[in-house]
Amino acid sequence: VRTIRIEGAVMEGNDRIADENRRALRDAGVTTVNLMGSPGAGKTALLEMTVGRLDPSVRLAVIEGDIEGSLDARRLERLGVPVVQINTSGACHLDARMVREGLRHLDLGSTDLLFVENVGNLVCPAEFRIGEDRKVMVLSTTEGEDKPLKYPLMFRTSDLMILSKIDLLPHLDLDPDALLMQVRAVSPELPVLQVSARSGQGARQWIDWLEGCLG
Amino acid sequence: VRTIRIEGAVMEGNDRIADENRRALRDAGVTTVNLMGSPGAGKTALLEMTVGRLDPSVRLAVIEGDIEGSLDARRLERLGVPVVQINTSGACHLDARMVREGLRHLDLGSTDLLFVENVGNLVCPAEFRIGEDRKVMVLSTTEGEDKPLKYPLMFRTSDLMILSKIDLLPHLDLDPDALLMQVRAVSPELPVLQVSARSGQGARQWIDWLEGCLG
Repeated sequence: VRTIRIEGAVMEGNDRIADENRRALRDAGVTTVNLMGSPGAGKTALLEMTVGRLDPSVRLAVIEGDIEGSLDARRLERLGVPVVQINTSGACHLDARMVREGLRHLDLGSTDLLFVENVGNLVCPAEFRIGEDRKVMVLSTTEGEDKPLKYPLMFRTSDLMILSKIDLLPHLDLDPDALLMQVRAVSPELPVLQVSARSGQGARQWIDWLEGCLG
Repeated sequence: VRTIRIEGAVMEGNDRIADENRRALRDAGVTTVNLMGSPGAGKTALLEMTVGRLDPSVRLAVIEGDIEGSLDARRLERLGVPVVQINTSGACHLDARMVREGLRHLDLGSTDLLFVENVGNLVCPAEFRIGEDRKVMVLSTTEGEDKPLKYPLMFRTSDLMILSKIDLLPHLDLDPDALLMQVRAVSPELPVLQVSARSGQGARQWIDWLEGCLG
């Protein structure tokens, strides 16, 4: 795992660098997904499931964003995916400049689909464009029904919501219909897929959605 | 619920205001607990459990920190607890200035134990002192074993960790011993209590710990 340590996050000029990233990625034919969600929502597990099920002709790469460490990067590298680790030195999100650094260490010409797994956080990542084509948020069934009203920006800026860990539903007090009503209250058009990375439930719809994003 | 809307977070002078808050709270005989954790970790459920089990002679109050809304404040108000809601206008944490505003709306002379429920976030709240006597973090069993290595500051600055939702352990792949090893690796002295707000397991130890904090 290559690890890049970033000293301090800079908001200034973020949108300009995000546009440059997007242009470079599009020129190289790369579709980029910014994957966001709370700590432990199941972002890496979703990516592990994706690696095994995506059409093998689609060449994947991953940029992993973490405050410290490279645990998730190593999980994905074990599956044969090229991974670059970004350590944010305390910053609670990735910004476009950090991702630009990450792109320098990837072979974009050999990449069709790039996942950028953001720092686990339901707040700050929603505020920073990084040059992505799509924003996908992961919300776990264990997080409760009230998250849309408490963290509306994440739900409003995302193009897709994955409701993860649905295999746990029989053991939780969560009412999925009540949750979906809350989601619609803050983001009426947000599509929601219900997925379990453990059982594979919902995987087909997720892969179909992803393949629909490819250029 | 009284709601205070804060325009913009300010880091400057935070420690000075935190010291002032702490002095004011101590002068009034109030013990203050800053409660932190990811979205959906179970912070409000822990408080609900606490209200029902704490010695009735201990007079409680709560400051609720949320980006938007007052869902948790209303849950606690229903139990008869004085609650002040702070809305952070997008800020991902409470700071000392926001808490100072909140204190103005509480009757400190009639309060023995004040909980400040921070914004759901495993990163930023750990960086801001608010004038608390104790920092308590809640980590849910559903968040996985790797969080200490990924969010070390929260584990290092906390005085107690609550491992919540332990009633779900039979349905998860989590190895609690592996998690506790990870906790000790980043914060060797951090005490950990295993709690289920749903079943009441571990409640006695939590209440004992709290009562040991009272002046």
